[in-house]
Amino acid sequence: MPSANILNVGTELTSGITADTNAAWLARALGEVGYVVGEIAVVPDDARAVGGEIARLASSGGVLIVTGGLGPTPDDVTRDGLADAMGVPLERRDELIETIRTFFDSRGRAMPASNELQAMLPIGAEAIANPRGTAPGIVARVGGADVFVLPGVPDEMKAMFQTAVVPRLASAGAGVVRWRSLRCFGAGESDMGERLGELMARGRNPLVGITADEAVMTVRIRATAATTTEADFLLGASADAVRARLGPWVFGEGLDTLADAVARLLTQTGLSISVAESCTGGLLATRLTDVPGSSVYFRQGFVTYSNESKESVLGVPAKLIAEHGAVSGSVAEAMAVRCREIAATDIALATTGIAGPSGGSAAKPIGLVYVALADAGGATVRETRLGAHLLRDQVRDRSVKVALDWLRRTLMKRSSPE
Amino acid sequence: MPSANILNVGTELTSGITADTNAAWLARALGEVGYVVGEIAVVPDDARAVGGEIARLASSGGVLIVTGGLGPTPDDVTRDGLADAMGVPLERRDELIETIRTFFDSRGRAMPASNELQAMLPIGAEAIANPRGTAPGIVARVGGADVFVLPGVPDEMKAMFQTAVVPRLASAGAGVVRWRSLRCFGAGESDMGERLGELMARGRNPLVGITADEAVMTVRIRATAATTTEADFLLGASADAVRARLGPWVFGEGLDTLADAVARLLTQTGLSISVAESCTGGLLATRLTDVPGSSVYFRQGFVTYSNESKESVLGVPAKLIAEHGAVSGSVAEAMAVRCREIAATDIALATTGIAGPSGGSAAKPIGLVYVALADAGGATVRETRLGAHLLRDQVRDRSVKVALDWLRRTLMKRSSPE
Repeated sequence: MPSANILNVGTELTSGITADTNAAWLARALGEVGYVVGEIAVVPDDARAVGGEIARLASSGGVLIVTGGLGPTPDDVTRDGLADAMGVPLERRDELIETIRTFFDSRGRAMPASNELQAMLPIGAEAIANPRGTAPGIVARVGGADVFVLPGVPDEMKAMFQTAVVPRLASAGAGVVRWRSLRCFGAGESDMGERLGELMARGRNPLVGITADEAVMTVRIRATAATTTEADFLLGASADAVRARLGPWVFGEGLDTLADAVARLLTQTGLSISVAESCTGGLLATRLTDVPGSSVYFRQGFVTYSNESKESVLGVPAKLIAEHGAVSGSVAEAMAVRCREIAATDIALATTGIAGPSGGSAAKPIGLVYVALADAGGATVRETRLGAHLLRDQVRDRSVKVALDWLRRTLMKRSSPE
Repeated sequence: MPSANILNVGTELTSGITADTNAAWLARALGEVGYVVGEIAVVPDDARAVGGEIARLASSGGVLIVTGGLGPTPDDVTRDGLADAMGVPLERRDELIETIRTFFDSRGRAMPASNELQAMLPIGAEAIANPRGTAPGIVARVGGADVFVLPGVPDEMKAMFQTAVVPRLASAGAGVVRWRSLRCFGAGESDMGERLGELMARGRNPLVGITADEAVMTVRIRATAATTTEADFLLGASADAVRARLGPWVFGEGLDTLADAVARLLTQTGLSISVAESCTGGLLATRLTDVPGSSVYFRQGFVTYSNESKESVLGVPAKLIAEHGAVSGSVAEAMAVRCREIAATDIALATTGIAGPSGGSAAKPIGLVYVALADAGGATVRETRLGAHLLRDQVRDRSVKVALDWLRRTLMKRSSPE
């Protein structure tokens, strides 16, 4: 099974100013072409650290993907680190300067002198074209490994990985490793683990694991086999077994979100939707419209943040708000019912709750959220008490997930035969 | 200067199913108590790999923070890896089983048998209490390093780091390293680098670097000094110099978002705001209401996704949409003007554009976005052509940033004396 390591370079990463999103993308992309990632490492913009890590990670052979530190400013030292690891000096490549100059020309700008730094490459290394930016990538052989150096800017890195790295990897694979992920909502890790039982045994092929991420659980299944067909057969059997045990907790596969699952069901059923939001402040509409093609079912959203807007825009009676409070099941219900009427949609969802960090009380603590769903049959309200330890962002995120999951389960009943 | 390494364990990380957010948080938190992170490493749920990396990273001394792999399922093997690196076996700690059982009891649930795994610790290691979950943390001495093992679940990890790890680190520091970050929008990395010039020289103290993340540029400044006072003095001088050169591109510090900057200015000026969104689908309202206390200035939002809703809810004339198209400056302007009237706010922002992946044409390509700002003086429209290489999410994100930055600059003119 071919293996790969990843090295991301950047003091912004080791100091925590930026979260590393390149590593996860690269790991998935490598997996899709049959590589298992053995290690991901991150080091600061320090030529010695970069050189040392390239040498260490390359010594295990296979493939090493390095990202970051190819920019035009003095803190970009990956070129130097690579040259150290190769034991050669950098040289200036005139043809690369012309390419960079052309890139600036096409945007009607003069090339800043600093960008000449990006045309310095270790002797013996090869350049990779960067169609979206000024930093060329680099291919080199270090120790027993093929080393590919790409820019840290995600869209440049992704484009170059697909167009220049993948074609050079494709022939390398002996066996294959294939992944499948089932996405779940509504249960915790222990409960899911108990249901899955011996399917999660260590050393089993396929191997089954569970990962929690902001209340979404991912059951990941990894099969190793001689051929893609065989691996996919093994994955299919395990995925069926997992689905049978987890039932309606499973809402999708791969990188599916709850909004993706809802989008499929809305498209299938031909139903339209609108939303009225208070505590989620537009996030429910955002998630629904994140999905390409959402204009087919999503009509409109109201972010009625103030009490006045709940009254003037949705027509929620002032008396109802005065009696029960804006955060109440009665107000959520009225919001959903009125939203559905105004938007003339089949279904409407409404949220009202206390996201924090202030505004909580003993009777109505932070994390208390009411979600209402209105359809032709009337309206239903759910009270959810999210953990008091959740942050504002998390309360808003969970509220949206609870609403989308309820919508999903409602639509599933409609779309399946009685 | 005390140094720290970070090791995150999880096949979900090395396979790219989940992005590693713990590393960035830990790096920042370690920096705040004077530690420089030398390396971040990520390995799969494999006891041998975990044990090998703990031994390697511990060999450089200092502090090693390990997260993940402490769950109750068989793929959680960090305990085993740590025991290997220490050269001792695991033992069952009855007192930890009682603690875990109490945690389940307090939630009215029976402890699943699998959770007993979490009470296995290497001989000689010490447990750290986990107030928010079932997995105890672990403290141990490996090689020359103090090793702290925490759960991978972010909120459990963060709470335990602050309550149990920081107190043990506090006395370790000799000198200090302090960071400051200036957040910028509106320019690219090369342009900013040219303006900053010799401030970015390698080896300078403070050290200045630039990082790009989804069109927001962060200028990070690192000072090393004998005392906090001295380091902060150096940081202040450098930050002033950076601000002087970058001018209005700088919108904030630390982890500030454009919405945070806008929130401060809206609060200062006492102005209220409403939004009407088409292509951004609720994301502009979401960003504005992400900020705690946003109910002071944010009144309401309309997500008028369909043409019908632009007409019926906002009263945009059907004729205008027919003549210019829903994606046009005229429609954006009408949306902003009507939104401001309906919501009775001082300012209204509107967006309409083509987010993709479909719906583009030669005349109106993907990435074409109109943002309108209406205030007492009337309405102004800006046309922005975002790069054709951007994904749907990125078009929506950039559109919101363009709108927020425009609002920020408008508010700055109002809040500063003539």
